[in-house]
Amino acid sequence: MLPFARIAIIGMGLIGSSIARAARARMHGVSISAHDASADVRARVLDLGLADDVADTSAAAVIDAELVILAVPLGAYADVVQALAADLAPGAVLSDVGSAKRCVAASLAGLVPPGVALVPAHPVAGTERSGPDAGFATLFEGRWCILTPPEGTPAAAVERVSAFWTRLGSRVEVMDAAHHDLVLAVTSHVPHLIAYSIVGTAADIEEVAAGEVIKYSAGGFRDFTRIAASDPTMWRDVFLANRDAVLEVLGRVGEDLAALQRAIRWGDGETLFRRFESSRATRRAIVEAGQDVDAPDFGRGR
Amino acid sequence: MLPFARIAIIGMGLIGSSIARAARARMHGVSISAHDASADVRARVLDLGLADDVADTSAAAVIDAELVILAVPLGAYADVVQALAADLAPGAVLSDVGSAKRCVAASLAGLVPPGVALVPAHPVAGTERSGPDAGFATLFEGRWCILTPPEGTPAAAVERVSAFWTRLGSRVEVMDAAHHDLVLAVTSHVPHLIAYSIVGTAADIEEVAAGEVIKYSAGGFRDFTRIAASDPTMWRDVFLANRDAVLEVLGRVGEDLAALQRAIRWGDGETLFRRFESSRATRRAIVEAGQDVDAPDFGRGR
Repeated sequence: MLPFARIAIIGMGLIGSSIARAARARMHGVSISAHDASADVRARVLDLGLADDVADTSAAAVIDAELVILAVPLGAYADVVQALAADLAPGAVLSDVGSAKRCVAASLAGLVPPGVALVPAHPVAGTERSGPDAGFATLFEGRWCILTPPEGTPAAAVERVSAFWTRLGSRVEVMDAAHHDLVLAVTSHVPHLIAYSIVGTAADIEEVAAGEVIKYSAGGFRDFTRIAASDPTMWRDVFLANRDAVLEVLGRVGEDLAALQRAIRWGDGETLFRRFESSRATRRAIVEAGQDVDAPDFGRGR
Repeated sequence: MLPFARIAIIGMGLIGSSIARAARARMHGVSISAHDASADVRARVLDLGLADDVADTSAAAVIDAELVILAVPLGAYADVVQALAADLAPGAVLSDVGSAKRCVAASLAGLVPPGVALVPAHPVAGTERSGPDAGFATLFEGRWCILTPPEGTPAAAVERVSAFWTRLGSRVEVMDAAHHDLVLAVTSHVPHLIAYSIVGTAADIEEVAAGEVIKYSAGGFRDFTRIAASDPTMWRDVFLANRDAVLEVLGRVGEDLAALQRAIRWGDGETLFRRFESSRATRRAIVEAGQDVDAPDFGRGR
């Protein structure tokens, strides 16, 4: 039994195309219709054979779909749903994959027709690559997918979306959207902002040539450049959508960094050592939880 | 022709043991003597067969060595050299692998006997692991090694150390110690400090459970935890030794982060987008320069 027999994916980038690939691989018989705002992407999706049907409009893509997944930047949600709402099938479930969740219900308020259940979802998975060629079927395996259904969402709809993500290989958690946004500000949004920021800082320091930053990046800097290569539009929208939690966490980061800065200025090796020592336990826990590879240097090149 | 026929390595952790392995693999006939302050490490080095001779004291290790490499934390340099200086062979070259370089000449002033050349070196390579079991022979392949000989160092000594690192697979650059310290503050020291700091911040936020930080770390946070698992003693000493450059770069980082923070607060998507977009070029340049793998997600687990 498939959780949904007919799904529509709006936005065929890294995540949308990975969902299509994973659904094909793991849900035999599922029918996939797809749409992307870019004609080039639509043509590529056709070439790659990622969907049974590639529609020229989002409205055409969602007709008869039991599950509609928005896989577009958060800033596009309202326009996209406005364009397709009238064609949603009664009883359909509307979901998404956005990295911020409080904003989903807020930006779609009044746009979701009665009889359509909204079940916001966030698969915590990805790479720094973008576009339909970047996706792959195993992207969600062993990763968590967080559902944040608004109050009053029918339990059956939540269960079907949960079953869908489980079939794609994910582990599913249900939580409050506000809590999601704080947790992800810590584990994803602020790390991305800091990576973007420091890559810019390094590029701008006049005394250090750009070539030197590249040559000696194996000293640690290159680790930051990976996530800083992620899709700029998607991330701009995440920061605008999750402003409060990001600013709250950034405030903490600034305080903690200032404390280490002060320790360096005053030669307080004790404070530095204590802070550094505790980090190893966090790394170990992540590896033990299966959330990173158990190989030094991310197993790079060996 | 070997650049040095007899080498001594003081400190057999990740870097020291990797030098021993790489020298064995790439310089047939070289004689390696080793010492480590820890009796456990010395026993392990014997078991692993990493050296021809494992000495109980650093002084015994350096007798007859043509090249002596300090691979201990920067804070131990003065004591270590004091203990072995009298046994250095005339004409020997004293080198090291420390991540800060201005401090090397400063901390060894007056301790290096006449007739011994000091050629400080910094192989920009490593993993987050520590100890003699963590080393491997290919660690330095394709990575840069920076030499910072003080003024007046005999050119022949610099050339021999350069030839040594070339034989280990590295590319060699010679530069001024002060410039090295600024470049590495950007590409290595400050990234490590930020990673250590944010891993601590995440662990301390009361509203987010430690388990949640672990579970959802695939959103970006886990990338920071790798370098934050590095040796705390080594890194404490780096920050104390390279204080001025680290504080200078941290000041820039704080300014740039504050600008992005302000853009988020005021909903200035343009500023965010412009900053994010430029990061991709840096990542691409690092991959093209062979300083990181050309695979999404560091090629993790695939």
